[in-house]
Amino acid sequence: MNQSGISSVRPSGRARDAMRKVTLEPGWAGHAEGSCLVRFGGTHVLCAASVIERVPPFLRNSGRGWVTAEYGMLPRSTHSRTDREAARGKQSGRTQEIQRLIGRSLRAVTDLEGFGERQITVDCDVLRADGGTRTAAITGGWVALHQAFGWLIGKGEIDETPLIGQVAAVSCGIYEGETVLDLDYAEDSACQADANFVLSGDGGLIEVQATAEDRPFAQSQFDELLALAKHGITGLCAQQRAAVG
Amino acid sequence: MNQSGISSVRPSGRARDAMRKVTLEPGWAGHAEGSCLVRFGGTHVLCAASVIERVPPFLRNSGRGWVTAEYGMLPRSTHSRTDREAARGKQSGRTQEIQRLIGRSLRAVTDLEGFGERQITVDCDVLRADGGTRTAAITGGWVALHQAFGWLIGKGEIDETPLIGQVAAVSCGIYEGETVLDLDYAEDSACQADANFVLSGDGGLIEVQATAEDRPFAQSQFDELLALAKHGITGLCAQQRAAVG
Amino acid sequence: MNQSGISSVRPSGRARDAMRKVTLEPGWAGHAEGSCLVRFGGTHVLCAASVIERVPPFLRNSGRGWVTAEYGMLPRSTHSRTDREAARGKQSGRTQEIQRLIGRSLRAVTDLEGFGERQITVDCDVLRADGGTRTAAITGGWVALHQAFGWLIGKGEIDETPLIGQVAAVSCGIYEGETVLDLDYAEDSACQADANFVLSGDGGLIEVQATAEDRPFAQSQFDELLALAKHGITGLCAQQRAAVG
Amino acid sequence: MNQSGISSVRPSGRARDAMRKVTLEPGWAGHAEGSCLVRFGGTHVLCAASVIERVPPFLRNSGRGWVTAEYGMLPRSTHSRTDREAARGKQSGRTQEIQRLIGRSLRAVTDLEGFGERQITVDCDVLRADGGTRTAAITGGWVALHQAFGWLIGKGEIDETPLIGQVAAVSCGIYEGETVLDLDYAEDSACQADANFVLSGDGGLIEVQATAEDRPFAQSQFDELLALAKHGITGLCAQQRAAVG
Amino acid sequence: MNQSGISSVRPSGRARDAMRKVTLEPGWAGHAEGSCLVRFGGTHVLCAASVIERVPPFLRNSGRGWVTAEYGMLPRSTHSRTDREAARGKQSGRTQEIQRLIGRSLRAVTDLEGFGERQITVDCDVLRADGGTRTAAITGGWVALHQAFGWLIGKGEIDETPLIGQVAAVSCGIYEGETVLDLDYAEDSACQADANFVLSGDGGLIEVQATAEDRPFAQSQFDELLALAKHGITGLCAQQRAAVG
Amino acid sequence: MNQSGISSVRPSGRARDAMRKVTLEPGWAGHAEGSCLVRFGGTHVLCAASVIERVPPFLRNSGRGWVTAEYGMLPRSTHSRTDREAARGKQSGRTQEIQRLIGRSLRAVTDLEGFGERQITVDCDVLRADGGTRTAAITGGWVALHQAFGWLIGKGEIDETPLIGQVAAVSCGIYEGETVLDLDYAEDSACQADANFVLSGDGGLIEVQATAEDRPFAQSQFDELLALAKHGITGLCAQQRAAVG
Repeated sequence: MNQSGISSVRPSGRARDAMRKVTLEPGWAGHAEGSCLVRFGGTHVLCAASVIERVPPFLRNSGRGWVTAEYGMLPRSTHSRTDREAARGKQSGRTQEIQRLIGRSLRAVTDLEGFGERQITVDCDVLRADGGTRTAAITGGWVALHQAFGWLIGKGEIDETPLIGQVAAVSCGIYEGETVLDLDYAEDSACQADANFVLSGDGGLIEVQATAEDRPFAQSQFDELLALAKHGITGLCAQQRAAVG
Repeated sequence: MNQSGISSVRPSGRARDAMRKVTLEPGWAGHAEGSCLVRFGGTHVLCAASVIERVPPFLRNSGRGWVTAEYGMLPRSTHSRTDREAARGKQSGRTQEIQRLIGRSLRAVTDLEGFGERQITVDCDVLRADGGTRTAAITGGWVALHQAFGWLIGKGEIDETPLIGQVAAVSCGIYEGETVLDLDYAEDSACQADANFVLSGDGGLIEVQATAEDRPFAQSQFDELLALAKHGITGLCAQQRAAVG
Repeated sequence: MNQSGISSVRPSGRARDAMRKVTLEPGWAGHAEGSCLVRFGGTHVLCAASVIERVPPFLRNSGRGWVTAEYGMLPRSTHSRTDREAARGKQSGRTQEIQRLIGRSLRAVTDLEGFGERQITVDCDVLRADGGTRTAAITGGWVALHQAFGWLIGKGEIDETPLIGQVAAVSCGIYEGETVLDLDYAEDSACQADANFVLSGDGGLIEVQATAEDRPFAQSQFDELLALAKHGITGLCAQQRAAVG
Repeated sequence: MNQSGISSVRPSGRARDAMRKVTLEPGWAGHAEGSCLVRFGGTHVLCAASVIERVPPFLRNSGRGWVTAEYGMLPRSTHSRTDREAARGKQSGRTQEIQRLIGRSLRAVTDLEGFGERQITVDCDVLRADGGTRTAAITGGWVALHQAFGWLIGKGEIDETPLIGQVAAVSCGIYEGETVLDLDYAEDSACQADANFVLSGDGGLIEVQATAEDRPFAQSQFDELLALAKHGITGLCAQQRAAVG
Repeated sequence: MNQSGISSVRPSGRARDAMRKVTLEPGWAGHAEGSCLVRFGGTHVLCAASVIERVPPFLRNSGRGWVTAEYGMLPRSTHSRTDREAARGKQSGRTQEIQRLIGRSLRAVTDLEGFGERQITVDCDVLRADGGTRTAAITGGWVALHQAFGWLIGKGEIDETPLIGQVAAVSCGIYEGETVLDLDYAEDSACQADANFVLSGDGGLIEVQATAEDRPFAQSQFDELLALAKHGITGLCAQQRAAVG
Repeated sequence: MNQSGISSVRPSGRARDAMRKVTLEPGWAGHAEGSCLVRFGGTHVLCAASVIERVPPFLRNSGRGWVTAEYGMLPRSTHSRTDREAARGKQSGRTQEIQRLIGRSLRAVTDLEGFGERQITVDCDVLRADGGTRTAAITGGWVALHQAFGWLIGKGEIDETPLIGQVAAVSCGIYEGETVLDLDYAEDSACQADANFVLSGDGGLIEVQATAEDRPFAQSQFDELLALAKHGITGLCAQQRAAVG
């Protein structure tokens, strides 16, 4: 796998194993106990973690906490305006899939017995969308969650972070027949397959979602996508560590 | 009216006729035809104007256009987390009141016959809330709308802007017995009366909404509130002109 | 201001400072603890106050009560039939604005600590609509509320009325360039500006909502509208006192 | 069957075959093409028929019209306040059953080919409830419908009424072991069985709904209920003819 | 009444007093405490009774139990596909009518004080529809309910069944001018009147719902329909006893 | 990989590469153009394909067709009763995820240009659930879809099937540390990871969804899961071919 040449096919000219420019700005939201503005190129997602002093009914009197996520897009975060879900009166199936994915991913690296009967809700709101909003949300959501646990430590509520590892995510896909890392919108809307990988900081698999957009693809291609994802997520995890200092 | 002393009662220490620091950043949203990030102190609202090539049913074949607005708050824009309206499945009465107000205010300075059968939807999403979100939204919304009409001119779709004037808004209130300009959250949540004034660039009244929070107030107090509003809006209009340059 | 000439412009021929014929019939609803059928000319609103022995969650164990309102229109109260909100599955933004306004207005003259942990819900249902339904509802709602408190006194639950004053309301507007009192439907649907004033019995301001329907209007016009409203509300308050006699 | 003695069991003291006082006031609603305020004792229902110049999709281009009904109760029409269906966001199963029943009953005496592609919507809103609201609604709804067809005749849109007969309704039940006519609320809430009969002017059966509230009842009892209903409906039909006379 | 000739009018060729082939298969649902797959010819309904260890709020601390029903149709149980109610976001008026009817019918033969504070929910889901789904559901629902009570006896929770009798149901109608038993879809969609009869095992009336589809019908016809129903239900009750035997 | 030993860990005693007993019964639904009752052991799903002579708005006048799916569970298909989605008024996020997955999977093997502007809706309703409902639905849905296209061929509407291949699906997981094929409910509710694989008849990947339920898992484990899936799906495809004959 040639991991550094210039791609002749990617609209952005990126090499096939090149991420877009990624930035993570912790504390961006003024009021939240933890927050992070994450940018994957032109995709900007505001992640805000709120500490709530109660748990869902199924956890009452269990001594355990919960981490959950909600996801939304500003109506004009997209290239053309999307209807506001609050005005339509319900969240789309896509929205629900994504927020369930984010919540599961964050819980996979959290010790739910380590912060009492509290819920952390991580709101991931897309301010600008250019592909990969769910993977950016997971990557930035971990930073917001880390900060929220730090806030609990600072208040003396808990002694150490319940985070037992890192989690980050990236999308990969088959575009113009070539496996590429970190799809932007131009690629995402015209690819043959796309896959979202959620990995732990030490390379373990947390979630894999791969979809053939057109025709079935081969296992060898899947293996290439996973290798690209590991490469990208290694870099994301380094940036997360830098962000939470 | 003493317009420059330091207030002994305002939590912020502002003079009673002093606005918070206001900034207007046009073009903040990447994809919208017009946009503005408006800040009134700690209140940040992203206004995005989308040009849509169709009108509501009641205007079809009328040759006229429409301007409307939608309003939302990110769940953690507030001091403690607010439920997401999309998840609750409906917009609150407060949200509906505000978006109707923004739409009426913008239409009051627009020639609806001047841009064909198009709708401009101005989405006003609160990223951070510290009082006065609806007045910030109107003030920034005008900038976004101006930019969207500029986009139509640039495309050759229309020859001149259908805007026939400026519109800006500010809240005033009676706090600790004193009439003050531009309430922040600390004042808004403890005032005796609050009022939202929407004025045109030449000082005409477009909307007035005054509410006694506790007991009725006097007409002389109302007159003071209106004078404060005119003072504040004069400054906001100057900033709008600078922003659209 | 000439307050008694015959108007040459009003469709009804009323003088510009003339109310429509107003009647207040307490006790019209058979089962409610307090009620009033209020008529402003062709606008008929049935106000029914129900005493409910519990308060909303935010007031539990506070020792305080609550007054709230709901508003609705019979589908054929209007000139042409309006869809039934229960069938559409939600209340319109207009309905929510109006019922919030009625509730705030009634609370402004009520001592919420004076009747225990009870809620009074004032249902205002429009049987026939000809403009000014919300102002009629506030005016009649006060009578219904007064009667409900009388019912509590009669039962020995409280010693004296928690009402600390009267509240009544009227709309004014600019029609054919002239400021006029108590808009009917013909005027309301064609005016340049309309305003709803909610005043206390001693002339204090409780709510002001003024809207330019077309272009901005001047402060001097606003002052005329307010003067007309004070004139009209003085008469309404006298009728309220007669009704609760 | 003794049809005239004084009942020793009925709370109202009525004879077992005695209706409550019934009145029919056509034209009560100001704006509707047809209307009737119907009273069965303490049950008051406002029926308003609206002529709408379009039909439901399944009848387009069929040359046929449609008659339908909607039903609602004012929240405080009842002894204790009932939640407003518009606020709850949906109509109850009971409401839907009733409005479907009213619509079917009225269509059973209407020639749907006799008034073009129009829909008549008969809104039946309960202003005060004391048992038997659905039967009062059918009885008064026929008067409103008759008046609406008269309005179409008056406008020259149709030559003769599409009504091919009368329809009226009454409830009967088994109370304290005795079959009785026209249940009021006190009886309805404590009866062993109740039945709603919808009959045509010439005694034909249009709808029968009989329900054992407690234990099954005998066919002989059912026959008594039907006989009582025929007796009561004969009188209602005479009152309808007088009302539209 | 000739009860055994071959009908010259029925599409199926059945005699006018002939039921379709009826089968009752208890225990069809794998997990439910009681269940029955009931077939009335081409109408197949799966009835599943679930024992739930709590009651609705109005029965808490009453010592009484509750029996209720829910009804649904698979989207393609019908001749052409019907929209899925879960996707449309609400149950139709027809669905609500039917499930209320099933619940009332089952409660009429149940001693609600005989099984503690439990709720039995009987889900009746139509797998295939060919007319008479609600009457099949009641007939099969009783078997499922019987089995659920047997399960409670088997667990030692109750000593004897709270069922105080049987309940079964059948539809009858006037088709081509002739009164017939157990309408199938071809008859149901073209009949002059249809009626649903719910009777107890000893012939008592529990529910009667008769509707003129076209024009009013005569009492003598109603009497024929009831006689047919008694005939059919006698057979259904025998099959129920065999099924739970 | 030992593919035939008896598992010492699986609750069912199955070998780790053993499927449950699978049956496919085409034509089970009486009215649908195509249908299949599919059983994966105790999981029974009724798949019904309906041919609808119109397409969604985004395909009108495109000459292309559409294949979509809806998914539901009977309330008592589950071990304990689940709320009916139609009664709750909305489909869960899980339901939406599953029906989107089924639709995408079926479209991946269909030539959407091969059957005109028609929509095939494949309803997948779970009659009994014991793990793996979505994979059973895809496997049976393909048979129903095949039959529906056969129906169109039989009517002469199309000449050949638009299916360009087979699609089947199975779940795999890590249970008690061991990778196993075709999870049943006992395994699914206690596994360390579960994965759903949707493969084409020639072994291409169509959808992969893998989730760590507890802690991240290794790529080598993922590879084992995929190998198990290929093994299972080879058998499923053979059964599909037998079923469609």
